[in-house]
Amino acid sequence: MQDGLRIDGERLCRRIAELGQVGAIAGGGVARLALTDEDRAGRDLVVGWMREMGLAVTVDALGNVVGVRRGREDLAPVMMGSHIDTVRTGGRYDGNLGVLGGLEVLATLDDAGIVTRRPLAVAFFTNEEGSRFQPDMMGSLAFVGELPLEKALATAGIDGATVGAELARIGYAGPAPVGGKKGKVHAYVELHVEQGPVLEAEGFTIGAVEGVQGISWSEFTLTGQSNHAGTTPMRLRHDAGLVAARITTFARQVATEMGGHQVATVGLLTQFPNLVNVVANRVVMTVDLRNTDETLLKEAERRVFAFAEGAAKEEGVGLSRRTLARFEPVAFDAALVGRVEAIARELGHEVRRLPSGAGHDAQILASVCPACMVFVPSAKGVSHNVEEYTSPSDIQAGGDVLLRLVRELAG
Amino acid sequence: MQDGLRIDGERLCRRIAELGQVGAIAGGGVARLALTDEDRAGRDLVVGWMREMGLAVTVDALGNVVGVRRGREDLAPVMMGSHIDTVRTGGRYDGNLGVLGGLEVLATLDDAGIVTRRPLAVAFFTNEEGSRFQPDMMGSLAFVGELPLEKALATAGIDGATVGAELARIGYAGPAPVGGKKGKVHAYVELHVEQGPVLEAEGFTIGAVEGVQGISWSEFTLTGQSNHAGTTPMRLRHDAGLVAARITTFARQVATEMGGHQVATVGLLTQFPNLVNVVANRVVMTVDLRNTDETLLKEAERRVFAFAEGAAKEEGVGLSRRTLARFEPVAFDAALVGRVEAIARELGHEVRRLPSGAGHDAQILASVCPACMVFVPSAKGVSHNVEEYTSPSDIQAGGDVLLRLVRELAG
Repeated sequence: MQDGLRIDGERLCRRIAELGQVGAIAGGGVARLALTDEDRAGRDLVVGWMREMGLAVTVDALGNVVGVRRGREDLAPVMMGSHIDTVRTGGRYDGNLGVLGGLEVLATLDDAGIVTRRPLAVAFFTNEEGSRFQPDMMGSLAFVGELPLEKALATAGIDGATVGAELARIGYAGPAPVGGKKGKVHAYVELHVEQGPVLEAEGFTIGAVEGVQGISWSEFTLTGQSNHAGTTPMRLRHDAGLVAARITTFARQVATEMGGHQVATVGLLTQFPNLVNVVANRVVMTVDLRNTDETLLKEAERRVFAFAEGAAKEEGVGLSRRTLARFEPVAFDAALVGRVEAIARELGHEVRRLPSGAGHDAQILASVCPACMVFVPSAKGVSHNVEEYTSPSDIQAGGDVLLRLVRELAG
Repeated sequence: MQDGLRIDGERLCRRIAELGQVGAIAGGGVARLALTDEDRAGRDLVVGWMREMGLAVTVDALGNVVGVRRGREDLAPVMMGSHIDTVRTGGRYDGNLGVLGGLEVLATLDDAGIVTRRPLAVAFFTNEEGSRFQPDMMGSLAFVGELPLEKALATAGIDGATVGAELARIGYAGPAPVGGKKGKVHAYVELHVEQGPVLEAEGFTIGAVEGVQGISWSEFTLTGQSNHAGTTPMRLRHDAGLVAARITTFARQVATEMGGHQVATVGLLTQFPNLVNVVANRVVMTVDLRNTDETLLKEAERRVFAFAEGAAKEEGVGLSRRTLARFEPVAFDAALVGRVEAIARELGHEVRRLPSGAGHDAQILASVCPACMVFVPSAKGVSHNVEEYTSPSDIQAGGDVLLRLVRELAG
């Protein structure tokens, strides 16, 4: 595998630009919400490329599309892929890079006349973003058997239309049964933009993604007492705003003290009655905790929840908490992560291990086969935004790592 | 003065209840915004009582009303008073108690056949609350010469009407020149409900008000960077919400460490974009600092402002600050405060010195004559609310202190 084969980065960038014209919006972004006319047009373009390349294309009953390139033996394929649906004001790279990068790997092998032992597949999964239909990662969840097809098809979107009806309408309610069982995919590799600032900020070209962070979203409602800011001595206050502030600073402290991949964010904080001279009688706030390690995530939760209760009690403020979301971390296959790192080094790229802070189809596929992800930098960490950008040289680097890794895996 | 003369608390409470029927609203409160029809009706009722008692009533060009009871000598009068305008959902006691308490003192002296050496006056000042027209304490400010009459008359209210036009409309643009010069009032004593929880919470009946707190209102705008809560490591964040929280907790710390009469409140805090999983890129917040001592208030400002700048810098967050309001503290006449305290003790009441956290006409009058205030408890510290309540026994106690003090002052 030291033959120095490289993908054609320019061809890949041209395809990214061409797909980016489908559902294009002002500022260079795209809007291809799942199962809309724009999504259909994007699907048609990519499926057309798959057919041109001679792939065997199957569309399953949930609209997941898989293009397979035959191998020398009839084995479970090595799969690449991601998604091509976008958020309402999305970029050109999120998802699309993984799908078109996979096609570029196959085209490169075609050009070099190389046939791998195992088949190679490129997949795009329906509704990864979850902007129109909940849950996100719907296609891959059904693909691995974690979401019943009937439930997925019956899902109504933000506009009232159901997944089933929209699939039929755009012609992507395919004949194939949904998804695979364990063993039907040999391994899954997803090339993706980081969507965060770490690689760029630290000067790395390749991220070897160790896993996807577990997520804990809690909402706290603090109930204090509204009082006059001038006439109420400090010791007689029940200030919901103060307790909220103490929780916010403590959450940061926990993340700092725990270090590693622990992050903590109080993104939402709404104070009532929100007047200059009235002590706050109510605050609704959220705490977003994430870690790649479930034990550590639980520890962060325990510390923040305990502190919040103590701080509320100390101030004579009522506290209630509800869980808005809770997902356990997913660890990618250690051997694959190691290979991503090693290959990137072999190719002369600066590489670092890092977790993914966002969810991806790869974490779903990880339940049925060894899976991993290759990250390339997002300029300024921006994603889900028309300004999303990854440079051609980084795309070349990511595609080369993907090429070499799947060649290894496919033999 | 040890003759044991007491006011008729029942008569005073009846008058409070009767005035409370004018502009009555659901829940036992009143709405008599300055210079509305309801304010006129309230004024007419009180002026009627003044005339029944034989007082010489003057109405000045800003609608301030003064009723004078002759003394044995033609000297500057000892004045009692307050205001009878209310906020939109006000209580029956705020302001009204000081005016009707003053009338009750005169009625008690009438009943006892006592004529003081100095004249006694009862005043109510126009638009103390400032709910309809800014600034608050308008009538007393003009009375002492700190606000030009023309400016006051030209002031447009929240409904567009001007003070001058409304005074004319309700018949309270009086013929008398506005206000007094130094020396025209011998002393001013204002009986008022505390509007805070201290007296009730600590079991005191009478508050000897040492002064009115200085007020410092600052608005901070913090400008951070919006980032993904999952993908952005803690060290790369510029979290405006975290800086806001640190300022909030520090403001509390300053108030606690300084002790005394220092209070600090972050009542208003608005976070953007205010989403669970997005680091806040902007916060607008206020810090309300008050102290009875200008040097200490400046010290609190210095500490909070310096901390805010440091915290913002540390997080890489921009900070701008503007002053929304700044008033220096007013100290009431030390001798008068001492007499309030002593008289309350002589009458067998639990008394404590305390500052006023809210503004009052007395602080304005303090610039032209010795002034002081007598506080009685507000149930649960509630004011500017239909649930405002002060018990008949506390009203009796406050009226008795007022009676004895003005008899001393009037000789």
